[in-house]
Amino acid sequence: MTAPLFSPLARSLPATIPFVGPEALERQTGVAFKARLGANESVFGPSPKVVAAMAAAAAESWAYGDPEQAELKAALAAHHRLKPENITVGEGIDGLLGHLVHLATEAGDGVLTSRGAYPTFNYHVAGRGAVLDMVPYRDERPALFEDIDALLERARATRPKLVYFANPDNPTGSFHPAEAVERLIREVPEETILVLDEAYGDMAPAGVMPPEDLIRPNLVRFRTFSKAYGMAGVRVGYAFGDPGSIRQFDKVRNHFGVSRMAQAGAVAALGDQEFLRQTVERIASARERLTGIALAAGLTPLASATNFVAIDCGRDAAYARAILTEVLKEGVFIRMPGVAPLDRMIRVSVGREADMALFEAALAVALQKVD
Amino acid sequence: MTAPLFSPLARSLPATIPFVGPEALERQTGVAFKARLGANESVFGPSPKVVAAMAAAAAESWAYGDPEQAELKAALAAHHRLKPENITVGEGIDGLLGHLVHLATEAGDGVLTSRGAYPTFNYHVAGRGAVLDMVPYRDERPALFEDIDALLERARATRPKLVYFANPDNPTGSFHPAEAVERLIREVPEETILVLDEAYGDMAPAGVMPPEDLIRPNLVRFRTFSKAYGMAGVRVGYAFGDPGSIRQFDKVRNHFGVSRMAQAGAVAALGDQEFLRQTVERIASARERLTGIALAAGLTPLASATNFVAIDCGRDAAYARAILTEVLKEGVFIRMPGVAPLDRMIRVSVGREADMALFEAALAVALQKVD
Repeated sequence: MTAPLFSPLARSLPATIPFVGPEALERQTGVAFKARLGANESVFGPSPKVVAAMAAAAAESWAYGDPEQAELKAALAAHHRLKPENITVGEGIDGLLGHLVHLATEAGDGVLTSRGAYPTFNYHVAGRGAVLDMVPYRDERPALFEDIDALLERARATRPKLVYFANPDNPTGSFHPAEAVERLIREVPEETILVLDEAYGDMAPAGVMPPEDLIRPNLVRFRTFSKAYGMAGVRVGYAFGDPGSIRQFDKVRNHFGVSRMAQAGAVAALGDQEFLRQTVERIASARERLTGIALAAGLTPLASATNFVAIDCGRDAAYARAILTEVLKEGVFIRMPGVAPLDRMIRVSVGREADMALFEAALAVALQKVD
Repeated sequence: MTAPLFSPLARSLPATIPFVGPEALERQTGVAFKARLGANESVFGPSPKVVAAMAAAAAESWAYGDPEQAELKAALAAHHRLKPENITVGEGIDGLLGHLVHLATEAGDGVLTSRGAYPTFNYHVAGRGAVLDMVPYRDERPALFEDIDALLERARATRPKLVYFANPDNPTGSFHPAEAVERLIREVPEETILVLDEAYGDMAPAGVMPPEDLIRPNLVRFRTFSKAYGMAGVRVGYAFGDPGSIRQFDKVRNHFGVSRMAQAGAVAALGDQEFLRQTVERIASARERLTGIALAAGLTPLASATNFVAIDCGRDAAYARAILTEVLKEGVFIRMPGVAPLDRMIRVSVGREADMALFEAALAVALQKVD
């Protein structure tokens, strides 16, 4: 009897994936979605300048992209008033989270998050054989918040290698004021790295984001071009923090992994802050519209600092799932959290008026069928 | 005293990176290269159809790419007469090698390669805490070959989790006939996965590549769009093999990591086999030219089945490095292997006639200065 191929850890990992793409759902049903509002993409798109920069870079793509991403890091440093050595760039926040879990944990190490928070972080923790501990969201029905006090209390007791915290939060859309996040940063144990996921930070209202020069060795903050900049399909995100901690990423990352088009596109995106400002305005306006649709349908939209709205359907998970299923059948792609008590909600990304109208109609049909 | 941040393994890893990009060298010297012949990129570029497909996809890049890459996998399956479940797609072979090392090894596990073979594979092995064992290249001066007999003998003795083998080989350009590779596949221990890196397979002469339907549970073969297809900067490669083994990648990969532009570009590249055929012809012709340049300069070019030529400088590593340094100073980017006995060579990628002429002139200056 020979030893098995693949490691005991690999063989123990589930074959499930964090998120099923809308394309997979379309292949299952044979019907294309009319509106794509499930993945918190920005249908307002990338800036035309980004599209032009990427199209120009396409023809130069016989050459590897700069593995040090010097031009992009210089642009990011200027944008955030940091230095290039404060920044590492990767294949989206997902890729960077995988690297940080790789660097900070070994099999059996403890990691802390909130029950119902970002599944892809949990996926990377499982992939490393680290052990995930969770505290509940603070339930102020209908609102749900990641619970800073509970995270701190548990972290002090268990001294995990990593604590995950998102602000603004996905999938609830809720947020904490900067002072509360700064307290979390200050009070998390020194030997614990705070994984501060700020994917939605570019669209957060004033007073939500801690200052960017708040640098600690045990703090790594994550941003992306996937959300407000409208570049989800491009795959470029970044982490920033203490140079000694940021430098660790160079030990495990895929050095040539950020494409030439992605680097050119991200530089162009940073250079078009007026487009970003307009997008954030459009997001705010569409969020109002989406909130109105939910209220008019008798459901409860949660306050959101993001490009999506979590809508409390007012009953249990089965009810929310039934609504989700009917909305999908109507050709509108949305998602819902998989974990209680968050699973009383559906989650809808904002879109253009045409997208919002499609959701409004789909929701009306769904509620009629489900009730 | 608090526990340190980052794991003992991470802290033990060197901060060195597998390859320094030409951009970093340019930043150090302040001078831009006139010819870029060091990274085995294809200056013949991607097909115009690929450029058009990626430019079109740029505007759609607000949406994540299909995490299952269904269209691309279907196209690859048709191209190779395989099934989609035989194939996994990732952010270049580099990214996929990282995933396979992650899946197959745990800290302390043995992995086997050849001394001087692909450094990025070794980098991923180190990142996992696995232990690298190496056998020498078979030295038939001037030629150098990965030594199938030595690899098999050592693998039978040590039963490593992985054996790395490239055909055609980088950095020597040498190759083995398909029958020899098939013997390696047949005779490698059942509990060892053979990592068959075929990055240069699309430009190999007839009789070098084993048939693509040669599928074994302990065989994973790697291909890329970076070399013959001229898409190094796009970041898309794939692995194929037994569905049970290929499925493992889904447990650790970055599911949304292959960009929308990369997927569209790769599909277009597969659809333009005439461009590939022309590129392979241009590579062969440029290889002849490069071989002639080396011979005329009194150096010894090695036979190559790739888009580069390893040139034996005929003395020791210091001599080869001195030539390399002078060629770089002349504004021509080339590389050389870092490990004996391969470090008696410089390695030059093929290019257009203008690139080849620049190298010819730079080599003449270098030899005059060094002698």
